[in-house]
Amino acid sequence: MISRADAAALDAADPLAPFRDRFALPEGLVYLDGNSLGALPKTAAGRLAEVVGREWGEGLIRSWNDAGWIDLPRRVGDKIARLVGAAPGEVVCADSTSVNLWKVLAAALSLRPERRTVLSEEGNFPADLYVAEGLARLLGKGHRVRLVPKRELVAALDDDVAALLLTHVDYRTGERHDMERLTGSAHAAGALAIWDLAHSAGAMPLDLHGAGADLAVGCGYKYLCGGPGAPAFLWVPKRLQDAFVQPLSGWLGHAAPFAFESAYRPAPGVARFLCGTPPILSMSSLDAALDVILEADLAIVRAKSEALTSFFVEAVEQECGEAVRLVSPREAARRGSQVSFAHPDAYAVMCALIARGVVGDFRAPDVLRFGFAPLYVRFADAWETARALADVLSSHAHERPELRRRAAVT
Amino acid sequence: MISRADAAALDAADPLAPFRDRFALPEGLVYLDGNSLGALPKTAAGRLAEVVGREWGEGLIRSWNDAGWIDLPRRVGDKIARLVGAAPGEVVCADSTSVNLWKVLAAALSLRPERRTVLSEEGNFPADLYVAEGLARLLGKGHRVRLVPKRELVAALDDDVAALLLTHVDYRTGERHDMERLTGSAHAAGALAIWDLAHSAGAMPLDLHGAGADLAVGCGYKYLCGGPGAPAFLWVPKRLQDAFVQPLSGWLGHAAPFAFESAYRPAPGVARFLCGTPPILSMSSLDAALDVILEADLAIVRAKSEALTSFFVEAVEQECGEAVRLVSPREAARRGSQVSFAHPDAYAVMCALIARGVVGDFRAPDVLRFGFAPLYVRFADAWETARALADVLSSHAHERPELRRRAAVT
Repeated sequence: MISRADAAALDAADPLAPFRDRFALPEGLVYLDGNSLGALPKTAAGRLAEVVGREWGEGLIRSWNDAGWIDLPRRVGDKIARLVGAAPGEVVCADSTSVNLWKVLAAALSLRPERRTVLSEEGNFPADLYVAEGLARLLGKGHRVRLVPKRELVAALDDDVAALLLTHVDYRTGERHDMERLTGSAHAAGALAIWDLAHSAGAMPLDLHGAGADLAVGCGYKYLCGGPGAPAFLWVPKRLQDAFVQPLSGWLGHAAPFAFESAYRPAPGVARFLCGTPPILSMSSLDAALDVILEADLAIVRAKSEALTSFFVEAVEQECGEAVRLVSPREAARRGSQVSFAHPDAYAVMCALIARGVVGDFRAPDVLRFGFAPLYVRFADAWETARALADVLSSHAHERPELRRRAAVT
Repeated sequence: MISRADAAALDAADPLAPFRDRFALPEGLVYLDGNSLGALPKTAAGRLAEVVGREWGEGLIRSWNDAGWIDLPRRVGDKIARLVGAAPGEVVCADSTSVNLWKVLAAALSLRPERRTVLSEEGNFPADLYVAEGLARLLGKGHRVRLVPKRELVAALDDDVAALLLTHVDYRTGERHDMERLTGSAHAAGALAIWDLAHSAGAMPLDLHGAGADLAVGCGYKYLCGGPGAPAFLWVPKRLQDAFVQPLSGWLGHAAPFAFESAYRPAPGVARFLCGTPPILSMSSLDAALDVILEADLAIVRAKSEALTSFFVEAVEQECGEAVRLVSPREAARRGSQVSFAHPDAYAVMCALIARGVVGDFRAPDVLRFGFAPLYVRFADAWETARALADVLSSHAHERPELRRRAAVT
């Protein structure tokens, strides 16, 4: 049997414990939704006040040079590169994950002009599938998005597959793909491998080069803690950067953005994957958050993540018995930094938990999702959540009609 | 002869004078670059602190509903709609101007499938041309971007033109197109008219419906004062909203964004032109700025703009003589809210002006550009700029070698 005391002992021994104080978390709230919106790094608030008051208010237009706004997409990109196993000059911060995926998928399809299939798995993050679908429709050349169950992915890699498009960690189950193995399989079939790192960047060590990956995108507002709707990132390895002119050709991706030439000349390197003017306020917040995250050793972050999620699984199964069913892999190594349980009334259960100050997430149709951002989530939070869940289920709190009527949990 | 006293009298009689105090402008600076980056509305700083500290820091994921983040693109869009002569539900705030132009241009080309030409004018804002070029290249169906001199636009509207793509106010010369007349000519030729309102929205009354325009985009960080890289907007009139599924299909443009369906179903109305998660911090700043701008009567704003720019032309020509040459139309009605003068050494001249605390802009190859944001620019600023320019030119300050070496004025 485990107990609150075990959680306290684990927290006391946690080398990352001091990081929690770097984030502004409401007193008394258990926040297990950092994989949807990361918590606020205290320095981000100060940085934003500085960017608004001094850089924008006083520096005005001069801050594009004097405060280095013009280089921010690359500077932030280089910070993210250190988290994902990329080299300097291979990552830019820009736009949304969807727009970035559009760019790299367009690149991939252009590099495999004879092939017409984008292969992904059933249940992959829908937003990514919408992007692939939209691009295929626009091209009008018979491209299709083919979805197969996870276990059939390798068999489905035939000679029509231009790109294997996968989310590294599944947004619902938390299952983590073997990036190196699947990339190898894609390459053996002549396809490119594109990885969406939305649910892994910042929560574990990543090694895009080591895995041999071809292209990647990721999110700035989950484990990277950049703030709501923080701009996203994309990775293009040096070997592919000049192989293609991505179609969202904008002024910031021009070789000479301030020459105001009529014709587009793509910038050398990853800069050609930039498009329009970057949202400096949102990007500055992400920049400040990355400085906090880069202080942590990702190997230690991952070790804590595995310990936290394992402790949570054990606590929930001990406290709640068979009332919920584990959806995430039981083996820690196969999980991302989240744990999901199924319950037939998951939506109302999550509403009842939130009403008690335990914030996780609901994912249709029946998933209770709990994210464990290792920099600010404690073992005590995992314990309290298991206890709160047990209380909700045993008291039937989730069966109260007012909870069933609540607006959707986003 | 006009004098400083005339400027003071005009400022004293200016009904918009109280608005200047709503903006945080550095003491002693003359800021005539609000058409590149608008000044900071004081309320935007407070609003951002609130969004960061309370909505993000305390509300966390709950703020998508509780603080209304999820509706922000449409809420901000409806505010912009009031400035441009659009109806509620026709404008969304999203992405960058370039990405939005991509979406509406793709829509336009799809609505004219037999035609292959995007017609624009020589010297149109290059970023818009890059977007058109990128889309044409991706489609691979022989689309071309054709550029002709302004006076040949109407004659060039042949039966191959799918879309006439123009910037309402020229970013260099400040010349303002007759939107209604050119839209009419485009329609007579069977083409759609797409307007980029970057240099007009917020600086003058606009009437997209009255002009019969088809599609429009615009910028959030010039006269709208949303902050550096603030998200942009797009307008699609109700009659065209459901005629097309724009290709940057993302989750926020889905009919049921939280149902996590595998297939894309476009939202009804303008919402289908949304793509990924909006940058809430940057968009909140724009939202706060719009509340200030919406307090002003745009007819009065335009009247002041014409008076300001006319006073400036007169003052410069009086104080500088023939050392500079007016590039903007002399007739106020044909100008936007800026005045440009040519000087062979314009770059060094602008550096010398900036060194004296007068911030305008340089545009290659020889243009001194001065923007007059009527809500916070005074007649006194116009006078001081004319005097500073005369001083620079007569003292040959711009010929000092250190100014020639300065980094580019962005």
